[in-house]
Amino acid sequence: MFPEYDVIVVGAGHAGCEAAAAAANMGSKVLLITMNMQTIAQMSCNPAMGGVAKGQIVREIDALGGQSGLISDRTMIQFRMLNRSKGPAMWSPRCQSDRMLFALDWRQTLEDITLVDFWQDTVKEILIKDGKIRGVKTSLGIEISSKAVVLTNGTFLNGLIHIGEKNFGGGRTGEKAATGITEQLVTLGFETGRMKTGTPPRVDGRSLDYSRMEEQPGDENPGKFSYKETPRLTKQRSCWITYTNTKVHEILKTGFDKSPMFSGRIKGLGPRYCPSVEDKINRFADKDRHQIFVEPEGWTTVEVYVNGFSTSLPEDIQYKAMKEIPGFENVRMFRPGYAIEYDYFPPTQLKLTLETHLIEHLYFAGQINGTTGYEEAACQGLMAGVNAHLKINEQNPLILKRSEAYIGVLIDDLVNKGTEEPYRMFTSRAEYRTLLRQDNADIRLTEKSAALGLADEERLSLVKHKIDQTEKLVEELSREKVFPEEVNDLLAEFETSPIREKTSLLQLLKRPQLTMDHIKRIKPSMASWLESLSTDALEQGEIHIKYDSYIEKERLMVEKMNRMEDLMIVQNFNYDSVSALSFEGREKLKKTRPQTIGQASRISGVSPSDISVLMIHIGR
Amino acid sequence: MFPEYDVIVVGAGHAGCEAAAAAANMGSKVLLITMNMQTIAQMSCNPAMGGVAKGQIVREIDALGGQSGLISDRTMIQFRMLNRSKGPAMWSPRCQSDRMLFALDWRQTLEDITLVDFWQDTVKEILIKDGKIRGVKTSLGIEISSKAVVLTNGTFLNGLIHIGEKNFGGGRTGEKAATGITEQLVTLGFETGRMKTGTPPRVDGRSLDYSRMEEQPGDENPGKFSYKETPRLTKQRSCWITYTNTKVHEILKTGFDKSPMFSGRIKGLGPRYCPSVEDKINRFADKDRHQIFVEPEGWTTVEVYVNGFSTSLPEDIQYKAMKEIPGFENVRMFRPGYAIEYDYFPPTQLKLTLETHLIEHLYFAGQINGTTGYEEAACQGLMAGVNAHLKINEQNPLILKRSEAYIGVLIDDLVNKGTEEPYRMFTSRAEYRTLLRQDNADIRLTEKSAALGLADEERLSLVKHKIDQTEKLVEELSREKVFPEEVNDLLAEFETSPIREKTSLLQLLKRPQLTMDHIKRIKPSMASWLESLSTDALEQGEIHIKYDSYIEKERLMVEKMNRMEDLMIVQNFNYDSVSALSFEGREKLKKTRPQTIGQASRISGVSPSDISVLMIHIGR
Ligand SMILES: Cc1cc2nc3c(=O)[nH]c(=O)nc-3n(C[C@H](O)[C@H](O)[C@H](O)COP(=O)(O)OP(=O)(O)OC[C@H]3O[C@@H](n4cnc5c(N)ncnc54)[C@H](O)[C@@H]3O)c2cc1C
Ligand SMILES: Cc1cc2nc3c(=O)[nH]c(=O)nc-3n(C[C@H](O)[C@H](O)[C@H](O)COP(=O)(O)OP(=O)(O)OC[C@H]3O[C@@H](n4cnc5c(N)ncnc54)[C@H](O)[C@@H]3O)c2cc1C
Repeated sequence: MFPEYDVIVVGAGHAGCEAAAAAANMGSKVLLITMNMQTIAQMSCNPAMGGVAKGQIVREIDALGGQSGLISDRTMIQFRMLNRSKGPAMWSPRCQSDRMLFALDWRQTLEDITLVDFWQDTVKEILIKDGKIRGVKTSLGIEISSKAVVLTNGTFLNGLIHIGEKNFGGGRTGEKAATGITEQLVTLGFETGRMKTGTPPRVDGRSLDYSRMEEQPGDENPGKFSYKETPRLTKQRSCWITYTNTKVHEILKTGFDKSPMFSGRIKGLGPRYCPSVEDKINRFADKDRHQIFVEPEGWTTVEVYVNGFSTSLPEDIQYKAMKEIPGFENVRMFRPGYAIEYDYFPPTQLKLTLETHLIEHLYFAGQINGTTGYEEAACQGLMAGVNAHLKINEQNPLILKRSEAYIGVLIDDLVNKGTEEPYRMFTSRAEYRTLLRQDNADIRLTEKSAALGLADEERLSLVKHKIDQTEKLVEELSREKVFPEEVNDLLAEFETSPIREKTSLLQLLKRPQLTMDHIKRIKPSMASWLESLSTDALEQGEIHIKYDSYIEKERLMVEKMNRMEDLMIVQNFNYDSVSALSFEGREKLKKTRPQTIGQASRISGVSPSDISVLMIHIGR
Repeated sequence: MFPEYDVIVVGAGHAGCEAAAAAANMGSKVLLITMNMQTIAQMSCNPAMGGVAKGQIVREIDALGGQSGLISDRTMIQFRMLNRSKGPAMWSPRCQSDRMLFALDWRQTLEDITLVDFWQDTVKEILIKDGKIRGVKTSLGIEISSKAVVLTNGTFLNGLIHIGEKNFGGGRTGEKAATGITEQLVTLGFETGRMKTGTPPRVDGRSLDYSRMEEQPGDENPGKFSYKETPRLTKQRSCWITYTNTKVHEILKTGFDKSPMFSGRIKGLGPRYCPSVEDKINRFADKDRHQIFVEPEGWTTVEVYVNGFSTSLPEDIQYKAMKEIPGFENVRMFRPGYAIEYDYFPPTQLKLTLETHLIEHLYFAGQINGTTGYEEAACQGLMAGVNAHLKINEQNPLILKRSEAYIGVLIDDLVNKGTEEPYRMFTSRAEYRTLLRQDNADIRLTEKSAALGLADEERLSLVKHKIDQTEKLVEELSREKVFPEEVNDLLAEFETSPIREKTSLLQLLKRPQLTMDHIKRIKPSMASWLESLSTDALEQGEIHIKYDSYIEKERLMVEKMNRMEDLMIVQNFNYDSVSALSFEGREKLKKTRPQTIGQASRISGVSPSDISVLMIHIGR
């Protein structure tokens, strides 16, 4: 019934969709198998993409030629650049999405890729021959052959939904769970564990009193995710802010004895940084209020997402407590919040390509690797798709360094440190976050991806143009100089100190009080040229000039680290033969099988002296 | 958590959506409970509305102020008026729909109705007090109160999906079945049975060779369903026609031993008039080909519906057989066809209002009454919603006569005759089909509905305008006369016989060779006035003039029948006290409890002499 595929992707969530698109766009014949073709790319939780550190990931996905940025741009209803008041390393794009349009657009995007085929079914088993994947078997008993398989089952493996004291099987509310795969992987020697996540109730926007909340409109000049020329929003929908209070907390507490989390019924660990509201009032008992973001689910729907109110308490407690939130006095619920427990596979069982150590050509991506979040899932999917394609075509893998991308940080963390609780990206996880900015993901990644045939020509020429313009800008601003008598009056007006000698515009722009707009007034003859440059190049140039020293410092650190990253360890290195290694170090090294000394140095349990021993052994 | 509702509607399929909209638009506070808010108004089977007899129902729904026509108009990708070459009683509007848009539009439509609330959950039980409904209980254990409940569970009650030798629980592919309700209703004394229906595989349009098929474009001047001023299609997508052949049949036959239908694994009876392809080649062994309509599922999706190839044979047989169909040589499947068995409740347990005899204020509508088809479901939903509202407000019920609407025929058939196999509407089921045309549903029904507050003012004024114009038209055409010398040359050109004396235009228009366009040429002075009339009025007038005698004949029959329909039987009439009734007649009458002598006369098992006896007893 089916031809042999290059890559089979199991699951059409954020990870699976990116995996399928990437592998096919590179030339692999892909089959995307998913339980229900009507639910491709569902947002299981909040209708939003991006946010702190996550927005950077979306831009990286886009720079690499992935789809999440393009689709977000086409289907968003609001855009905000978070942390604008902080340094550019912290700027984080975030959008509200129209949930339905987002899913529809993903499906259409996949349909438009010639090499992606679809099959609606549940995969029950992977097929293996001689330690290598050879396809999958579905609930209909069909065996489908492929050279590689990417598993992206999300929260569906033995998914168990909890609301108060009730629980029932399901991969998401209203959808079935998937069984069989975990059980088989365990017999094959994989470790598995349980995690949990939760989601807030959805309510009827018509029942809310927005006059009692604070409006949070989108940015005045809304940005976007893609480096391609996607249209900008011309109208936006607002979100709204309100707060819980002690009354709300008191009511929630009355449900604690029925809470599946506090009673121990839920075994899996939840995301510490995305806690349920009961968790928040439990852990931060001194705080008498928590912020609630009231987010519309789309352009026209009245359904509303109560961000910050994730809960698995009994639904009547959810309801009674919500009614005490300002603006929610007459709230009507559409669906209660719930928690879900699911199987994951500790990601230390993976290579940096997301291929499993145990089975060749089998890749894991997304929530099943112990992460949480659409962006985290999507980028893993992309990387797994790319690497599956590269491997079956016997090409070098695409591995992003920690200094190159948040995606590199994420995968490196997962593979080397593993994770006990749902892993979510933060800027603090990246040691080089001044380098890993949202504004330069294209500069960091597009060329690399284009070389693999993933990012297209258009992307490449756009980024080249941006780089050219930025260089020209920096050059011109360093060449153009002004004299004290020419500008000191203006500088006084701009509340910055006068200059004493001929000074370049570049030097002036370094001052925190001055922006490109000031430069235009300081040197009116340059204004029209400056205005002819793209806003991207102007922003890029300004950041480079202002944060030059920070950027340079990190670059030096990176170089130092890279030397370690370049020291390769052969894949079948015999750690047992190196008696000087510590016992723990040896065990961890044998398990993780790092590809470089750099990677080895980041494995928890591997000591600096183990690293020295290793370096001697590989001949340095 | 919930207020007391007037009406709770269980299930958001075609029946449930119309029920919720109708009851709320009349002023009831409605709660729509459905298993998954993401799948509201899914088209489980083909992406099309209308068709022979079904198109008439959609127009009736529209005339009554229901939503299906409006939504179909807004989301269709092709429109055709079927049977144009036959008499106007047979003209049947049909559209291809964009499956996704259709569902989205329904959801938005419901959200826009202030009095409809939503709750995502599965109803497990109805709550009863003193033989009267008082609400429902859900899988979360929540009890929600209401004055009336409309059950519209579709194919979900103990749904069992079959593909070849495999079967699994489900309400639709990829969705869970619903349990509990049937079991409870049985303990309450309801009869239940099993039915089955099937659906064809969905395939990848990119894998088809349309050059080997016959194109079926939409109508040149596409019509629409709603009598309101919805926009007309300006572009359309084509369908394609191809055929099975003996090779296809031979391959299908190789799967017969694994067929769940032929092996007896499926107990429920399927729709005889919507047979599976295996059924067709089995029953019509002499036919060496069957027509296949290749229908796009939306404006842009590549998913394609293989109409005419419904099957529950093993998926590999489906695939191999399809490959032999011209144009399908390289077909790729998205989802296999399947059959589904589900519980239904023999509809003889209902009153003509769709209220159950056993439990007051409990209504059944849609597939659970043993029908099949979106249109059949939608119109029952509408009628149940309306009648639930009327009953709890102690108003007279809305019961449509067989002479007033296909909807009347449908409900009358169901309630009085019951159905052993999935009931589908045909024109042949209506004894007055010359009256029940698609062009006059508004004239038949809108005033009635407006009187109840369902059809809005706009509808009423549109239909009044149409009636006025039509009357004026008929009047003018009967008054305007032409002389032989004036028109005989033209009549010769139009290939119709000359006139011998002064003749009215009305008389001329009765001739089968002449249409309104000819009249314009025969009497050029009237052309511009005729053109100023609405196309609806022109069509209406032409039909009235041409088919006057047929219409009149049916009207007389109706009058005769109506006299019987006007003879009411009290609801608690004591049939046991009438010893002259036949044994079978008495039992059937006690079970059905007809509301009129007319209804009694249509109950199978009630003889003409039983009717005479009854008429004597009620005093005629
Ligand atoms: C209740 C809930 C709450 C969440 N809360 C948060 C939150 O607070 N913050 C946050 O950042 N993230 C949250 N998430 C996580 C976020 O939804 C996921 O991280 C993200 O969707 C994971 O993407 P994925 O592609 O890995 O899997 P999913 O989006 O879960 O997609 C999995 C896909 O695989 C398919 N599938 C599964 N098994 C099979 C099989 N055997 N055969 C065929 N198809 C299969 C499914 O049908 C589905 O299409 C939450 C998720 C849920 C369910
Ligand atoms: C496989 C298949 C093939 C079909 N083939 C044909 C065909 O060939 N020709 C044809 O004319 N028609 C066909 N149909 C029938 C057509 O789809 C139905 O007639 C029509 O959809 C019935 O509408 P409904 O509203 O009664 O139910 P459905 O459309 O089935 O909707 C039922 C709704 O109720 C919800 N629900 C069910 N139980 C509960 C509960 N306990 N609590 C809460 N919500 C609940 C469901 O989630 C769903 O939203 C087919 C249907 C299926 C599934």
